Amino acid sequence: MPAQPIHPPHRLLMGPGPITADPRVLRAMSAALVGQYDPAMTAYMAETQQLYREVFRTGNDATLLVDGTSRAGIEAALVSLITPGDRVLVPVFGRFGHLLREIAERCGAEVHVIEREWGEVFPPDEVIAALDRVRPKLLALVHGDTSTTVAQPLADIGAACRERDVLFYTDVTASLGGNVFEADAWGVDAATAGLQKCLAGPSGSSPITLSPRAVEVIRARTSIEAGLREADSPVSAHPIRSNYFDLGQILEYWGPKRLNHHTEATSMLYAARECARLLVEEGMDAAVARHELHGAAMAAGLEGLGLRLFGDQQHRMNNVIGVFIPAGVDGEAVRGGLLTDYAIEIGTSFGPLHGRIWRIGVMGYNARRDAVLTTLAALEQVLRQAGVPVPHGGGVAAAQARYAVAA
Amino acid sequence: MPAQPIHPPHRLLMGPGPITADPRVLRAMSAALVGQYDPAMTAYMAETQQLYREVFRTGNDATLLVDGTSRAGIEAALVSLITPGDRVLVPVFGRFGHLLREIAERCGAEVHVIEREWGEVFPPDEVIAALDRVRPKLLALVHGDTSTTVAQPLADIGAACRERDVLFYTDVTASLGGNVFEADAWGVDAATAGLQKCLAGPSGSSPITLSPRAVEVIRARTSIEAGLREADSPVSAHPIRSNYFDLGQILEYWGPKRLNHHTEATSMLYAARECARLLVEEGMDAAVARHELHGAAMAAGLEGLGLRLFGDQQHRMNNVIGVFIPAGVDGEAVRGGLLTDYAIEIGTSFGPLHGRIWRIGVMGYNARRDAVLTTLAALEQVLRQAGVPVPHGGGVAAAQARYAVAA
Repeated sequence: MPAQPIHPPHRLLMGPGPITADPRVLRAMSAALVGQYDPAMTAYMAETQQLYREVFRTGNDATLLVDGTSRAGIEAALVSLITPGDRVLVPVFGRFGHLLREIAERCGAEVHVIEREWGEVFPPDEVIAALDRVRPKLLALVHGDTSTTVAQPLADIGAACRERDVLFYTDVTASLGGNVFEADAWGVDAATAGLQKCLAGPSGSSPITLSPRAVEVIRARTSIEAGLREADSPVSAHPIRSNYFDLGQILEYWGPKRLNHHTEATSMLYAARECARLLVEEGMDAAVARHELHGAAMAAGLEGLGLRLFGDQQHRMNNVIGVFIPAGVDGEAVRGGLLTDYAIEIGTSFGPLHGRIWRIGVMGYNARRDAVLTTLAALEQVLRQAGVPVPHGGGVAAAQARYAVAA
Repeated sequence: MPAQPIHPPHRLLMGPGPITADPRVLRAMSAALVGQYDPAMTAYMAETQQLYREVFRTGNDATLLVDGTSRAGIEAALVSLITPGDRVLVPVFGRFGHLLREIAERCGAEVHVIEREWGEVFPPDEVIAALDRVRPKLLALVHGDTSTTVAQPLADIGAACRERDVLFYTDVTASLGGNVFEADAWGVDAATAGLQKCLAGPSGSSPITLSPRAVEVIRARTSIEAGLREADSPVSAHPIRSNYFDLGQILEYWGPKRLNHHTEATSMLYAARECARLLVEEGMDAAVARHELHGAAMAAGLEGLGLRLFGDQQHRMNNVIGVFIPAGVDGEAVRGGLLTDYAIEIGTSFGPLHGRIWRIGVMGYNARRDAVLTTLAALEQVLRQAGVPVPHGGGVAAAQARYAVAA
């Protein structure tokens, strides 16, 4: 049978991402294309930059999109900032710390790692002590690691980096929009994100912001590509190893020169712009408060079902909750029951947590009361059928009580 | 004023790409998301692979999408195939040959270049002689170079590569779907494309196909990333320098193991699948014939306006036509007039052709009679207002005559 038009089944995506996208973002992607240098296109690019300055809380001129998933943004930042042989410090407290280490190694860095158990964060002093010990060029640190549900406190790290002339990169894919993040106030030099978490869009575009000192490091390495190069074009002794992720070139494409690089992914730009537009319209503080409320209601509801939460709750991200799979329960069978009977997806987990916890996302478009209560009601049914003695209505009641406090 | 919802102006995009996307492709992107490992998602991934096997004319199991623009696909192929120090032969006949050289250099290759004037192609014997002289590991050769509008004949190159144990990569971004391309029959080891040309979609996803011998080279270099690695995971002496573009890992993500890599760009996958579905539904031969017909009608129409075509017409791509800007005419003013008064975009050009030719695309959704005749009618008006003595109705009449022959 020939392939049919796309017609996905209904899903309520309450995992660690991707989550159900906001219908307004999906509709934005169905807008007609315009040319790459059309005045409408360059205006949309400029608006997108301004919107993401508000989302990242920054005045950085160099705020733009990398055309790829959030992982593309990470690699663009690291490959553009790291010259082979550079020392890089990576504090690891979950899977995405390992990813930063992995990418930095492939960039040719001398990587130094400090580690914490999954579910914990680093006391900032521990990171700062490692800065003094390792004396890296770059600190690469995840903000919120979805694999463990916790968020590393960053507020004091940036100042310590500046004092030591260390560049500070952070991956905010999982946290941005649902947790307080302040690129400028926290002294962040580079931050990258994705759309598929609190930004309520699909994966495939990576917003990025770069401080002036990060831009300076990148510009010093910029080479104009063969085919566009002129006699007086800069030549670098340490060119960036990637063309696609060469932020020096990408900055020229987004900047006033509009120097041709890739063909901008127009529909994903429409999506990214709409994600930011909706957040800014709501207000960043209001968006964070919304994630905090619905995340807290979900956490209360899970405890109301008699489940035990995973990880350092003092540092839990607002938008994703880890919960232990009850003893004797087949975690995948419960996830399958939720999907089959209720069209609800919750998340499994990786590495040391695999088979031990589920991860439940409350983010973006699904940071909503009906999504929280529906998930709790369905989970109660599935757990009971799996033989877990869950209190009747205990999850929904606890969540409703949490909502009542906020009302 | 706060940013408003996306509402682009009407455009008829008759440049070298992006072109007006098929509304069915745009609608596919507005479908709701499903989870990354949802049975619906993995089924869509498998269908997408099968559809692109038909588009590329290949039996290659390793046929999939790279999440980024067409340039991302190029870099994924080259960085995964090239080990630093490898000799690579790049025949350059336009801007995108320079791009292959540039990317191969950043991958650490020892790059050898042969060149032709822009507008010409290489006699296949010249490429084969260079293979014997350079003895490269990899030949990287553009199929259709939009910068010059011509397509390199490839049919005899693959066999020569196999005899010499050379890997054969080709960039078919500009040509695929609108020109005959036969990955298997022509002995191609790796080919990459984009959606924004004859595939009638937006930029942002890069279909790729890899022969078994290309896969063998890549698998020998595969490292499983830190955070997912197990005691018996393979370790390579020459790991791929990029994580995001590590086709070894991406193959495991698209393969039966579904090993987590990036979060698939779901909406772009919906778009890519719909692009291929529409082409396969039409039939690849019929799609190529459609591009040939409408491209020929446009070329005839441009000559009917008294304009001179650019480049080797024997080897012109069906889907893009270069045409000299008449002496004394400001090419950008004409393009501006077309955009302002008729909402039609035609293309400028790069490098040695800048200011000398326009490039007019007839591809994908816009490989249509009304798009061709409307463009010719509008161009006639704008040229006359620019002082060019164009024959009244000459463009449209010549195109109609070409259509009459085909009818």
